Amino acid sequence: MPKTAGIVLVGNEILSGKIADANAAFLCRELRALGVEVRRISVIPDEVDLIAEEVVTQSTIYDLVFTSGGVGPTHDDVTIEGVARAMAVGVVRHPRLVAILEGYYGARLNDTHLKMAEIPDGAELVGGEPVRFPTILMRNVYILPGVPEIFRQKFEALRERFRDAPIHLKSVFVRIGEGSLADHLNGLLADFPRLMLGSYPEFANPEYKVKVTLESRDGAYLEDALAAFLRRLPAGALVRVA
Amino acid sequence: MPKTAGIVLVGNEILSGKIADANAAFLCRELRALGVEVRRISVIPDEVDLIAEEVVTQSTIYDLVFTSGGVGPTHDDVTIEGVARAMAVGVVRHPRLVAILEGYYGARLNDTHLKMAEIPDGAELVGGEPVRFPTILMRNVYILPGVPEIFRQKFEALRERFRDAPIHLKSVFVRIGEGSLADHLNGLLADFPRLMLGSYPEFANPEYKVKVTLESRDGAYLEDALAAFLRRLPAGALVRVA
Repeated sequence: MPKTAGIVLVGNEILSGKIADANAAFLCRELRALGVEVRRISVIPDEVDLIAEEVVTQSTIYDLVFTSGGVGPTHDDVTIEGVARAMAVGVVRHPRLVAILEGYYGARLNDTHLKMAEIPDGAELVGGEPVRFPTILMRNVYILPGVPEIFRQKFEALRERFRDAPIHLKSVFVRIGEGSLADHLNGLLADFPRLMLGSYPEFANPEYKVKVTLESRDGAYLEDALAAFLRRLPAGALVRVA
Repeated sequence: MPKTAGIVLVGNEILSGKIADANAAFLCRELRALGVEVRRISVIPDEVDLIAEEVVTQSTIYDLVFTSGGVGPTHDDVTIEGVARAMAVGVVRHPRLVAILEGYYGARLNDTHLKMAEIPDGAELVGGEPVRFPTILMRNVYILPGVPEIFRQKFEALRERFRDAPIHLKSVFVRIGEGSLADHLNGLLADFPRLMLGSYPEFANPEYKVKVTLESRDGAYLEDALAAFLRRLPAGALVRVA
């Protein structure tokens, strides 16, 4: 059974246009390469109720859920509380996280810092090395930070957990428009109903008019579909296959 | 009553990591500048049921909904059908859109092209000039294309419809970390409960450690909160205000 995933960006700063997301874009690329199908990205405000509601929904529907953001020490960092509420558990301090914070802050350690030792009750710590701080995993929900450099470091430490059968991709670039192409795509889908088929026009591109993507977890099926599609194309329509 | 908005990106190509979103990031910036509060971005697959479900939810909760993508002539362009299903209406061809397509394609016009004349029954056409093709508005749902250049052109033709009371913003850059800052932020929120307050650490930035954002629709309230925050900061902590 192919793995599915959902992404929850806890992101007032994205919704208010202050920054553009980098984490979901990174995660979609990485998970696809690992063979995991991302089915939803939700960007929601830094509000406990909304986080809880979204995590309940996504963690029920998808195999994996990744949250990004809202895990620092300030008032607007409420992701841990949101995930805990989603799972109907309390928030507790994890002794290993407390020890890491003690090692890092020493005598300067205060209650604000210790907020970063909080986890939903029952969560586990995963992927602690070579990254200093491990990732909090609550059931199927990986709680990741919003800062892109740390988000990536933490994901890298975990990535092999998520590897599934690969999704093979072929891209066909054509110099005819979607209006001429649509019938060929429909015919191809009729013959290859399990094919994942995308059609992406590029109006300002001098090289091609449409990029057609063919994808499948079955490499032989994909090759057959690609050959059938190339046979269907009118003479001269093909620019290249990649 | 401040206007709220939701954004639905119909985007297999985003979920599969083939492209990074540009439209939601653009729309969040533009709407914020107009005084509209974006409350959710959902990126979902090109599937009629999922589009319908998301549009039902968002159009009920928010004042405005914007969809992006899935409006071309090919098999994976199912946004019109999804919005129609959300509103429990059929799909019909609009005579004005048919006429525009006839003018554009002439004798080459085929049934595939005519798919682009389809609207949810009861939708209106808005913002047709100076853009060639008007935008389809179904109740409070603006149906926009995924191609960024056209998305922006269409939004520009509509933007003054969305203008609301502005949201004022002040950014305070400080050279102390969130661990030292959190108490000051909590104290500020206790005194100014209607303040929108964000705290964004930058670990790799040589100039400052945290960017604090203060926002309000009330300019005088914001100025008072800013003055109170600056008084709270320890000596030497302030880098600059912008």
